[in-house]
Amino acid sequence: MQRYKAILQYDGTNFSGFQLQAPQLRTIQGVIEKGLQKMSKGPRIIVYGASRTDAGVHALGQVIHFDYPTYLAPEKMRLALNSLMPLDVEIKEVQAVSNDFHARYAAHEKTYWYRVDRGKFVNPFKRFYTTHYPYPIDFSRIEIALKDVLGTHDFSSFAASGNQVKNPVRTITQAQANLDNQNQELSFYFTGDGFLYNQVRIMVAVLLEIGSKKRDLHDFLRLYQVKDRTQARWTAPASGLYLMKVHYLKKAAKSD
Amino acid sequence: MQRYKAILQYDGTNFSGFQLQAPQLRTIQGVIEKGLQKMSKGPRIIVYGASRTDAGVHALGQVIHFDYPTYLAPEKMRLALNSLMPLDVEIKEVQAVSNDFHARYAAHEKTYWYRVDRGKFVNPFKRFYTTHYPYPIDFSRIEIALKDVLGTHDFSSFAASGNQVKNPVRTITQAQANLDNQNQELSFYFTGDGFLYNQVRIMVAVLLEIGSKKRDLHDFLRLYQVKDRTQARWTAPASGLYLMKVHYLKKAAKSD
Repeated sequence: MQRYKAILQYDGTNFSGFQLQAPQLRTIQGVIEKGLQKMSKGPRIIVYGASRTDAGVHALGQVIHFDYPTYLAPEKMRLALNSLMPLDVEIKEVQAVSNDFHARYAAHEKTYWYRVDRGKFVNPFKRFYTTHYPYPIDFSRIEIALKDVLGTHDFSSFAASGNQVKNPVRTITQAQANLDNQNQELSFYFTGDGFLYNQVRIMVAVLLEIGSKKRDLHDFLRLYQVKDRTQARWTAPASGLYLMKVHYLKKAAKSD
Repeated sequence: MQRYKAILQYDGTNFSGFQLQAPQLRTIQGVIEKGLQKMSKGPRIIVYGASRTDAGVHALGQVIHFDYPTYLAPEKMRLALNSLMPLDVEIKEVQAVSNDFHARYAAHEKTYWYRVDRGKFVNPFKRFYTTHYPYPIDFSRIEIALKDVLGTHDFSSFAASGNQVKNPVRTITQAQANLDNQNQELSFYFTGDGFLYNQVRIMVAVLLEIGSKKRDLHDFLRLYQVKDRTQARWTAPASGLYLMKVHYLKKAAKSD
């Protein structure tokens, strides 16, 4: 038995998210487990992902691990697995790791990217890969508000309702925005030790409203206090969200 | 009655090409004519395109013209028409033009772009927008072969079989390639006074084979002589092809 860690990218458009659900739903976990079973011709091989990305959410650097019955050279595993993947999933890297590595529990931080199309009309080539927000924004307001996102906060107001978490406190170590006028795109980057369900998409919706002067500049500070999901209102669409990178400490494979 | 010229971009993936066909097939011409009829509430308004792009072929600068029963300010026409377009078609510019302008017959030249993904595996985000060709190529061979493409030639060997054209002679004024190693992409750019059916895609297939040393460096010169479509063999897929620009002479609206 050999444990493998793999880094993958996928176009989430035609998936019902990462996590295996009802068998008729197409999921990332499902297509990878199917591929592994085809290779091993044995019982089910469970795939564990660092992040359970939602339907329509993309990944440039999702991380998974799984236990394969025999040892295969990592590059061989990558070739074999890629040949069994549909065209919207690509295995970018494979490593043989020690048995105590866990894609999810060993993850130290994650980075998400959110792309906003600022064109007047929907760009046909970006319709599945960005969110269209053509309304006026004052970018400097977004930059100021992002400073309120940095640090350790109770994000209860930013967790999708219906999802009870024991601890809604998370630490955000990167909260940046970049305005690319040439491509009419606004990008957000968030790195943190964890994110509540839909947290990034709810934060982006609040940030865009602050930029459009529909909210106070420092509304994040109020939202941390009220701990009320309904006050954050909108959730930005899945199409603009990308899991960019999962960070592990150098000794992550040995820790948990 | 007012004639309008419009520039549009579209993602060709989910279209059966530009030209109206059987009513159950989704075409660019079809969705625009439907939109115009919804606006005018009158009889069918025929849409003429500069190029009849095929199923799966994209456009960044397709040009159309049509006659609208009343005068609308061009920007108003653009807004109204865009609001009736599906998300994979965007009207980028609208101009009111004189009645003798014809999108197709007044076109002086056209520029096509062809995108080749050079990654080892299919990139999930490029699968509908490039052609995957991971095999080794010698880029300098492609650059030399492109010089044989420039100029006036009989392109009979490069016309899809079954399509008889009276005059297979065309003049190519730009034939360039660009290798972007960072993005693992190879791009071709062709400008000419006209292209036979599938000509660009057949030329790209021949160029890739020359780059991979499966053909003689100057095989274009032989193909011009033999005038035999079967000798050019492959047609590169539609997904990599973009109609980039249609060129009109400054007085084009008055000519033809």
